[in-house]
Amino acid sequence: MRWDDIGFSLCPIARSLAVVGDRWTLLILRELGMGMHRFEEVQAQTGMSSHLLSTRLKRLKAEGVIEWHLYSAKPARYEYAATTKGKELDAVLLALQAWGQKWGDFDPQAEPSLTWVLKETGQQIGPFLKSPSGDKPFTFDDATPVISAAFQAEREARRLAFLAFRRDGRGGRK
Amino acid sequence: MRWDDIGFSLCPIARSLAVVGDRWTLLILRELGMGMHRFEEVQAQTGMSSHLLSTRLKRLKAEGVIEWHLYSAKPARYEYAATTKGKELDAVLLALQAWGQKWGDFDPQAEPSLTWVLKETGQQIGPFLKSPSGDKPFTFDDATPVISAAFQAEREARRLAFLAFRRDGRGGRK
Repeated sequence: MRWDDIGFSLCPIARSLAVVGDRWTLLILRELGMGMHRFEEVQAQTGMSSHLLSTRLKRLKAEGVIEWHLYSAKPARYEYAATTKGKELDAVLLALQAWGQKWGDFDPQAEPSLTWVLKETGQQIGPFLKSPSGDKPFTFDDATPVISAAFQAEREARRLAFLAFRRDGRGGRK
Repeated sequence: MRWDDIGFSLCPIARSLAVVGDRWTLLILRELGMGMHRFEEVQAQTGMSSHLLSTRLKRLKAEGVIEWHLYSAKPARYEYAATTKGKELDAVLLALQAWGQKWGDFDPQAEPSLTWVLKETGQQIGPFLKSPSGDKPFTFDDATPVISAAFQAEREARRLAFLAFRRDGRGGRK
């Protein structure tokens, strides 16, 4: 079975996987959920080549999962954001986060790398949260990410490595 | 960034994706959750080649996500099941299912292809269920799948196509 086919299955899990069933796509959505909206920011944190990231962003736009707008005309630069359809995948990311925190071989003494605090109540959210606003699905719009110092350092190191990579002329946007 | 690397990130989402971040893996876990436990059953419903399925099963066993036991000695045949670690990924599948049901371009008149009814209460479960047993994460062990007639027909057609494929000697387990 090819992935072109599986999107036509009656299984809702298969239909979701036909859209988001690769690691890169979910990492892109993680970055958008964490407030990164520019091409280079997402590239730095995911480690994707600019070609691969560009391809995935186009596909996600075609699927209606993200949208973008121009923030600089010369050179042309875009900001990317999840649509409502895309934001409702945050429940998937939250479930992956909870599972990874439990089963990802973390140092049990370390504080969690990433948690989310509800904007409305200040409450830290667990993996199986019922949306506070009733029937509306949970999205990261409802919450603020809390990033541990160690994970923050990892992200900063990744950002600096990406800048150095670009400065050396081996990377950058095509 | 290679996927060998990303499993070492402090991000719990990245650690989860390093284990389950491909479509095939999550489809295998869907089948185990739906009560399919034999190699050919999983192969028929996922459309994977026997080589690919075999490779993925071995990796999932090495990750502690599934286990297997012999049910026939001659020829050697195994039954596969999710471990506790694997079952706790059911929350990810449930979130994918909810999203796919909403955004997967289904006929709005059709009944949902797949829902789950809690064994304990008979209640149909929504996407953001808090486990009925308190802090225990939700797994499909707690529920019975309800498959629409149309999705059941799709699965049966897939099973028959697989049997025909095998009979013609172009498939089968290596």
